Amino acid sequence: MASTLITGIGELTTNTGEKQRDVSVVIENDRIAWIGRGAPEADSRVDIGGRAMLPGWVDSHTHLVFAGDRTAEFEARMAGKPYTAGGISVTVEATRAASDEALADNLALHADEAARQGTTCLETKTGYGLSVEDEERSARIAAAVADEVTFLGAHLVPPGADAESYVDLVCGPMLEAVAPHVRWADVFCETGAFDEAQTDRVLAAASAAGLGLRVHGNQLGEGPGVRLAVQHGAASVDHCTYLSSSDVDALAGSSTVATLLPACDLSTRQPLAPARRLLDAGATVALASNANPGSSYTTSMAFCVATAVLQMGLSIDEAVWAATAGGARALRREDVGYVRAGARADLHVLDAPSVTHLAYRPGVPLTWAVWRRGVLVGSGPGHESR
Amino acid sequence: MASTLITGIGELTTNTGEKQRDVSVVIENDRIAWIGRGAPEADSRVDIGGRAMLPGWVDSHTHLVFAGDRTAEFEARMAGKPYTAGGISVTVEATRAASDEALADNLALHADEAARQGTTCLETKTGYGLSVEDEERSARIAAAVADEVTFLGAHLVPPGADAESYVDLVCGPMLEAVAPHVRWADVFCETGAFDEAQTDRVLAAASAAGLGLRVHGNQLGEGPGVRLAVQHGAASVDHCTYLSSSDVDALAGSSTVATLLPACDLSTRQPLAPARRLLDAGATVALASNANPGSSYTTSMAFCVATAVLQMGLSIDEAVWAATAGGARALRREDVGYVRAGARADLHVLDAPSVTHLAYRPGVPLTWAVWRRGVLVGSGPGHESR
Ligand SMILES: [Zn+2]
Ligand SMILES: [Zn+2]
Repeated sequence: MASTLITGIGELTTNTGEKQRDVSVVIENDRIAWIGRGAPEADSRVDIGGRAMLPGWVDSHTHLVFAGDRTAEFEARMAGKPYTAGGISVTVEATRAASDEALADNLALHADEAARQGTTCLETKTGYGLSVEDEERSARIAAAVADEVTFLGAHLVPPGADAESYVDLVCGPMLEAVAPHVRWADVFCETGAFDEAQTDRVLAAASAAGLGLRVHGNQLGEGPGVRLAVQHGAASVDHCTYLSSSDVDALAGSSTVATLLPACDLSTRQPLAPARRLLDAGATVALASNANPGSSYTTSMAFCVATAVLQMGLSIDEAVWAATAGGARALRREDVGYVRAGARADLHVLDAPSVTHLAYRPGVPLTWAVWRRGVLVGSGPGHESR
Repeated sequence: MASTLITGIGELTTNTGEKQRDVSVVIENDRIAWIGRGAPEADSRVDIGGRAMLPGWVDSHTHLVFAGDRTAEFEARMAGKPYTAGGISVTVEATRAASDEALADNLALHADEAARQGTTCLETKTGYGLSVEDEERSARIAAAVADEVTFLGAHLVPPGADAESYVDLVCGPMLEAVAPHVRWADVFCETGAFDEAQTDRVLAAASAAGLGLRVHGNQLGEGPGVRLAVQHGAASVDHCTYLSSSDVDALAGSSTVATLLPACDLSTRQPLAPARRLLDAGATVALASNANPGSSYTTSMAFCVATAVLQMGLSIDEAVWAATAGGARALRREDVGYVRAGARADLHVLDAPSVTHLAYRPGVPLTWAVWRRGVLVGSGPGHESR
């Protein structure tokens, strides 16, 4: 048993009630043991000098088992120039060609980068393999690093394959091979990807195999994604850029989280998702990075929070909640996303007196210290900043 | 004479022509001495491992001689709540009450923060003193830290003062007291600040005193700011959020730079300035942070560049140029904003293979090393990142 007393917390966001001021936290091994005023005995002690502490980010949507480079495609998109050699299939080709070690190293590099920016719980997906063998190894590699792994065999019908036969494969041998490594299954329900009937089949098969469900839906236009997600009791439907009134109502009346991906909306020059409308209707909103080399190549949850506040009409507290407790809700976890006794010791300290600075000071690297499962990330307090 | 050879530059943005690949740079004291292929003799040597190098950011618009805190005002604005205790005059009161040392320390803190993010040439303004004594000391304190200092006595008519008498003061004793410390004068030309006739008087007086001119204009609506700036041959007119066709034409036909402040537009929930329209018309565009505790409390030029690309229609190269050479143009300097022999050794190395990643990976802290006047900022390569 190793314990650490953290004192000098100027502002503590717990997600369990009002912000607390001038409190201390005790970590025991990988858990939060105590929160309060005073200074109980502990093996070691850290004073954070009045800085703000919040739960580590819960990034509930990334695609980080990949290889290859799509910088030129992004450049062309930003320059408004045509680019025919792009798309998910480019990453599929590179991922299939990469060794297990190269995929694992690339995932670890991005997971470390995210952790140094305060992400302490990370979901990632398969979906650049699209064969039984490549999906199985993607899931296996992901499970060694990520907190949560999602099977996204239904990301794209691979070039040359017949859609219905591919859905048979996804629902049969691929699902069977991948299931031991994953908790979740996901479908890209969109025109050009998987249609309503195909999405329905994949969700039903995954559910029957005991997996929790997630859906990519309503990214490029209104469609059946949100409706199907709610009908199947999915934990989350992600993107939600284009929503009908009945989609909003369905989400508000369900336990399905609307996970918004503002960095993706911006990186594809789409409108930002209607976060305010969802919250006002009573839906649960999460924010995630959608880190992937095509549509959203960032691991910065702080950027997502700043964008949500500055441009999507969320208050600071709503945005911070969505990127912590909201992500936890989208992953149906209670042990992360909160600072409370018994929760995982996933703590994020800002080089700022309040969480407001995340939106007040966009782009400034504010992460000052991160504990993940009770262990300091990187070289310790202040390693990322002054 | 001390020289450093920097090798392993995977991509070099010089702003003097096409990007160069796999080149080396030699720094001698505070200047760039040589760029090319090969490895000339030097006192020391650094290999940057194929990373991208670009000129340090030239942040041509900040207000960093200030004291006090306006976090609550920002919070209220983002929550859509009324807040009556805000505005520039709050900062004026706190700044007047602060000691010289407190002002100098706060400026140095922010200048260091900016430098660690790649800003190697920094302009800052007075404008929170608004008395002869407080403007003089603001200018003196600024001159000890910033590369360029601007007199902004005409920021606001101080509460209780008569506007015309205040303009007399600005154009007379205040200008005289401040002039030895500054190169530039600026006016906030806007409804509620200084009108056309007042702006004209301040610009004429400052010009007669030998100062270069800058104007805050067209932030809150169309107005005479841009026109006056061009008429007076100002180096820059800043904000340019609302422009008439004749404003755009006037800028395109002048040597006055349009300095856009996207972080300010976002932090005040205004539209983003029409960057694409200005560039298409042939105007010169700069990007700056407008770092100040009220309307734009960020020092992140990378955030401005990412926003310009993702949301204002600039290509990566246009945005990077605007934040480096564009800022230099707005300050009428030739020694910064470029990587070329004879220029100041202000160099920014990204933990990325290309400048594209500044927009491709928004929010990720990409600064890997910074040389300012030939001196490594912080603890050296990699100090901000992996
Ligand atoms: Zn996705
Ligand atoms: Zn300004």
